[in-house]
Amino acid sequence: MNTTDLLDQIEKKGSFLCIGLDTDQEKIPPHLLDEPDPIFAFNKAIIDATHHLCVAYKPNTAFYEAYGLKGWESLSRTIEYLNSSYPHLLTIADAKRGDIGNTATRYAEAFFNDLNFDAVTVAPYMGRDSVEPFLKFPDKFTILLALTSNAGAFDFQTREVDGQALYKIVLETALTYEHSDRLMFVVGATKAEFLKEIRKIVPEHFLLVPGVGAQGGSLEEVCKYGMTDRVGLLVNSSRKILYASREKDFAEAAAREAEGLQKAMKKELIKRG
Amino acid sequence: MNTTDLLDQIEKKGSFLCIGLDTDQEKIPPHLLDEPDPIFAFNKAIIDATHHLCVAYKPNTAFYEAYGLKGWESLSRTIEYLNSSYPHLLTIADAKRGDIGNTATRYAEAFFNDLNFDAVTVAPYMGRDSVEPFLKFPDKFTILLALTSNAGAFDFQTREVDGQALYKIVLETALTYEHSDRLMFVVGATKAEFLKEIRKIVPEHFLLVPGVGAQGGSLEEVCKYGMTDRVGLLVNSSRKILYASREKDFAEAAAREAEGLQKAMKKELIKRG
Repeated sequence: MNTTDLLDQIEKKGSFLCIGLDTDQEKIPPHLLDEPDPIFAFNKAIIDATHHLCVAYKPNTAFYEAYGLKGWESLSRTIEYLNSSYPHLLTIADAKRGDIGNTATRYAEAFFNDLNFDAVTVAPYMGRDSVEPFLKFPDKFTILLALTSNAGAFDFQTREVDGQALYKIVLETALTYEHSDRLMFVVGATKAEFLKEIRKIVPEHFLLVPGVGAQGGSLEEVCKYGMTDRVGLLVNSSRKILYASREKDFAEAAAREAEGLQKAMKKELIKRG
Repeated sequence: MNTTDLLDQIEKKGSFLCIGLDTDQEKIPPHLLDEPDPIFAFNKAIIDATHHLCVAYKPNTAFYEAYGLKGWESLSRTIEYLNSSYPHLLTIADAKRGDIGNTATRYAEAFFNDLNFDAVTVAPYMGRDSVEPFLKFPDKFTILLALTSNAGAFDFQTREVDGQALYKIVLETALTYEHSDRLMFVVGATKAEFLKEIRKIVPEHFLLVPGVGAQGGSLEEVCKYGMTDRVGLLVNSSRKILYASREKDFAEAAAREAEGLQKAMKKELIKRG
């Protein structure tokens, strides 16, 4: 998948919503526990009910790894289902991997080839040779952590390096990596005012923005400071959609939540032409 | 496993060697490809031939994930074999995970409970709430990346924050985390002179030192600057041991390489009493 395909989806759907499939067996409706693969059954129902309202799905790999082999089977089934039933949607493995050279290549192969995701999130701490192996893959996106939406972000990401916050140094440095046009960046919505500064460094790249909804960020603020002429935003929501209901109507409830966000997004898209 | 158990092993074996099980199907002896699980067959042979010469094994999860479900089966078999046959050895999942709050807890559960590793490597970029969920587990170690041995380490880790290199800020900050006594730190051996400075910040903690051997670091230098009264070092070697031979004698060849390192380590242990 490339940027043109993504923009095409955004235009068609009037949405730049990414749904985070952080599927927690303890939070899904109890009646699904009788299914042979409850996590996949849940994901499939959510996807079928929301695919027309979003442009991307983002399973966080931790939720699958926590169940060992069984969890990896659920993840494999989910991505296979997405690729076969809804091939135009962007699929993101929220894996936050970071390792060097040949090891990074292994991770890239795992997510881009073996599982056939369109994108993977990557941590920047180990630098260039931990990111470039991902960037080698054409028609795939590497989504680098820049500024995250958690409290711990202030431990290191906002510390000043040569008079600039570390996350800005990360953005600037990443632009020098080979195939940096295949990058997107994770920028937390709880700090929407930072988006103005971020856009000075990366005026064009797509930003993946978590923290709208359950974590309290405002969609309007994010669009005000982060939207570009070619949208440039994917806004993620996970728990608020996934766990809108624990009853048999969970998928419809999820669709209602997603539709609320999609409508707000459409308004923002129209507002900005 | 706790520090006392680890020191007991180090004393018994005259070794602080960690063997990195970065098992690459393209590099293992071709005759093993006929086995039902070639990667596990290779690991088992290496472990059986070297367990008396080392105190830890460290599979890098990327090498297993690259083979999808099959790879996770190989990893599960490997850790099960280690736990059942050699329970006194330290087992490290070199996963370099880093995510927040409930997601970090999922990763911790995956590696500490589901797979039953003694330790896991973690990336620091997301800060406190991405590390503390791992530190909650008693008798488990969380090994935080501080200074890695790759070229990209100079992109961010050595950049100055308030007059100090970022990796030193990481060390100092991590000491303020709850249960910081359960931390170890990854410090690359290609920069042995940095160990002197690092020991001023973390005088007691164990350091996991990759980059001795194939990556060119010197064991003597590492011990000179990094060893404490209670050893405080785990030195990792991967490729030089694993791929000492591609013939039927690969396990014996690996043992010879490991023995070379173990003897050098014993000398260093005796030198420093």
